[in-house]
Amino acid sequence: MSKIYKNVAVWDARRSKAEFCDVEVEGTEFRTVAPAGSLNGENCFDGKRRTAMLPGFVNAHGHASMTLLRGLGEDLPLMEWLQNRIWPVEDRLNKVFVKAGAKQAMLEMLSTGTTCFADMYFFMDGVAEAVLETGMRCGLSRGMIDDKDGEKLRDNIKLAENFNGAGGGLVSVQLGPHAPYTMTFYMLRNVAEVAISKRLGVQLHWLETKDEWKNTSMSGTMTPEQCLENSGLTRVKQLVLSHCVWLDESRLGFYKKDNITLVNNPKSNLKLGSGVAPVAKYLKAGIKIALGTDGASSNNSLDMWEEMRFAALAQKGYFMDPVQLKAEEALKMATYAGAQALGFDKCGLIKEGWKADFMLVDLDSPQYMGWNEDNLAGYLVYSGSSKDVKTTVVNGKTLYECGEFTTLDKEKVIAEALSARSEMTK
Amino acid sequence: MSKIYKNVAVWDARRSKAEFCDVEVEGTEFRTVAPAGSLNGENCFDGKRRTAMLPGFVNAHGHASMTLLRGLGEDLPLMEWLQNRIWPVEDRLNKVFVKAGAKQAMLEMLSTGTTCFADMYFFMDGVAEAVLETGMRCGLSRGMIDDKDGEKLRDNIKLAENFNGAGGGLVSVQLGPHAPYTMTFYMLRNVAEVAISKRLGVQLHWLETKDEWKNTSMSGTMTPEQCLENSGLTRVKQLVLSHCVWLDESRLGFYKKDNITLVNNPKSNLKLGSGVAPVAKYLKAGIKIALGTDGASSNNSLDMWEEMRFAALAQKGYFMDPVQLKAEEALKMATYAGAQALGFDKCGLIKEGWKADFMLVDLDSPQYMGWNEDNLAGYLVYSGSSKDVKTTVVNGKTLYECGEFTTLDKEKVIAEALSARSEMTK
Repeated sequence: MSKIYKNVAVWDARRSKAEFCDVEVEGTEFRTVAPAGSLNGENCFDGKRRTAMLPGFVNAHGHASMTLLRGLGEDLPLMEWLQNRIWPVEDRLNKVFVKAGAKQAMLEMLSTGTTCFADMYFFMDGVAEAVLETGMRCGLSRGMIDDKDGEKLRDNIKLAENFNGAGGGLVSVQLGPHAPYTMTFYMLRNVAEVAISKRLGVQLHWLETKDEWKNTSMSGTMTPEQCLENSGLTRVKQLVLSHCVWLDESRLGFYKKDNITLVNNPKSNLKLGSGVAPVAKYLKAGIKIALGTDGASSNNSLDMWEEMRFAALAQKGYFMDPVQLKAEEALKMATYAGAQALGFDKCGLIKEGWKADFMLVDLDSPQYMGWNEDNLAGYLVYSGSSKDVKTTVVNGKTLYECGEFTTLDKEKVIAEALSARSEMTK
Repeated sequence: MSKIYKNVAVWDARRSKAEFCDVEVEGTEFRTVAPAGSLNGENCFDGKRRTAMLPGFVNAHGHASMTLLRGLGEDLPLMEWLQNRIWPVEDRLNKVFVKAGAKQAMLEMLSTGTTCFADMYFFMDGVAEAVLETGMRCGLSRGMIDDKDGEKLRDNIKLAENFNGAGGGLVSVQLGPHAPYTMTFYMLRNVAEVAISKRLGVQLHWLETKDEWKNTSMSGTMTPEQCLENSGLTRVKQLVLSHCVWLDESRLGFYKKDNITLVNNPKSNLKLGSGVAPVAKYLKAGIKIALGTDGASSNNSLDMWEEMRFAALAQKGYFMDPVQLKAEEALKMATYAGAQALGFDKCGLIKEGWKADFMLVDLDSPQYMGWNEDNLAGYLVYSGSSKDVKTTVVNGKTLYECGEFTTLDKEKVIAEALSARSEMTK
């Protein structure tokens, strides 16, 4: 049976404005998107012209299960934090814990309007199971660090064989070489070869910190761009490069490719002291830019509303120019751009025949006073917040509504995550 | 009758940790703060060890009634925005509109845990009336721009005569010379003279933009610090300097004075492209630092949770050092430091005999999973958000509880603000 959402303000990314519409969802798709007043039916929600329907957020880079590690040491120097607080605890990870952490993350993501997320971590079959039980859309990769004997690559391939396309297309699998400083050129070349032959995307951390390239085995023999080109990574189906704080600005043209997306992670980059990626400049160079939260232990939230706000304000501050990174650009980064990067077709816009991944936002709360169809993007990005998200729908199915989850038992999820954390930090 | 709050995690700013306490509020004050399990009584709230009691936020710089102007042009160059969008609309302000805008702001502030705010604007008797009807604590000043004949200063003095100490001490009044580029040295000297003789504080915008000092009539004849010293402003009871993005770092020692507080406005400074005030350095120099949102048209929210997060993350990013501006420092800036700056004694800490201005925060939501007494500050500043604020109490009186306001009629306030906005933007 189809469901009709009447009198909702639909954000139209192509025209950078909202329009009052009636929207029919049938099965997993938007069947009709028509001017308000056109549709009627029995199974009907009336937004009363004070509800926005937005594409669900796509969190294009993160480590969902790191919700388990949140708050384990704050305000510490990077290496002290990693070596003494994070890595010893990560050593005790197992599939059960990772699954519990992923469900904990999904509670937070669904309640804040995120419908799809990218994930790079370990014991990824645990995440895949959690996602399939919950019904979220995701792009999963097995984080590969120092993969001398190719065991981790085989593990990632197995993940793809088992889960790529699972859940009726909800799950996509990418290969996940961690970063150029944790993988050699030859390991990256092996990854690219497999990705090309198996038509898989790749998720990779890229130039997050200022001195990162100096700490790679390739430093001195090739540039970062030569590494991507020569390894074959530029020829994979989709290449998703996260962080990208320290690109050589004279080489931005290189990254303007249909199959490359850079992911901006403004909060994590600030919190860890990595810097500000000048993404306003990247956008001007025609590069595709998506948005992600990174893991909850370096953010510390998985809330894409905040991430949009930090993205836009950080650019204005960095360039000392209030015109940089406009609200509508932040919205596009947080939705459509991420869905494309993870290989989901017809996903990320509210459009007939596209996937019904969306959220309903209550515009009746005080901070929206004065909004209209023309200024909605500014209100959403600069005044909006996740507390106004009333409903989150993925693939046509309502997963979150007014504080309640339809596929997750909130109390049980939190209890299991807490128990995993206790075991790991014993 | 007194009220007891049992089993709440009270943030202890002196020890930088939380402690489970029972707290008794009688009249306008905290009467007892004792270890959990010590108190009992009929009128009792049980926090069940999953509720935090924090001092209410003090929003130390802003223009409350600018809620009316929110969203009137976004992502525009500064002068285009001011000259074409803001100033023409501000020209139509009157007392009724300012009062409506202030009430709109109080809806947003109370629901996000703010108990006290600084305000510099026009028709300030409208704000004073709104505040007294609502019951919030505030420091009010009449914004003075180009006050040749002293009329605005007389208006500000009248505001002080009518409202300083009103509401049983809820209202304090400061003098509000707008900024060094909108007031001459002689006007500032007149303000200082009156402030000293009448024992009033002063609120002043200070070095917000890079070229600000060049655009003052004092440029070339004295330094900013000489202006403060020679005008007498350094000798007023409390001097509150907002923004302070572009202080000369070789002169920071000057600002380390008991009666001077600098206010950090990180979101507004980023959004308008003014830059990042290096407040971590100011703190190291021993300067008092409070936190404020600025007006809602340049932020665009009045949410101090976000402001704390932006403050802390901006410093880490600016200095490229995750150790800068720790969570507990951000909490202190957002509470105690602001109350002191506005001249409120025994306000800003949860302590016996101090003013009962506080919020209750529900720690039972997913993003707090893993918190304890030692790590609470990090959870609050990096993962917390205003959606977890359940109760806001000012001067012992509950003004907000679970979505409901006890002294404001939400629907009526929004309708009146919307009507004011419509009139002003006609």
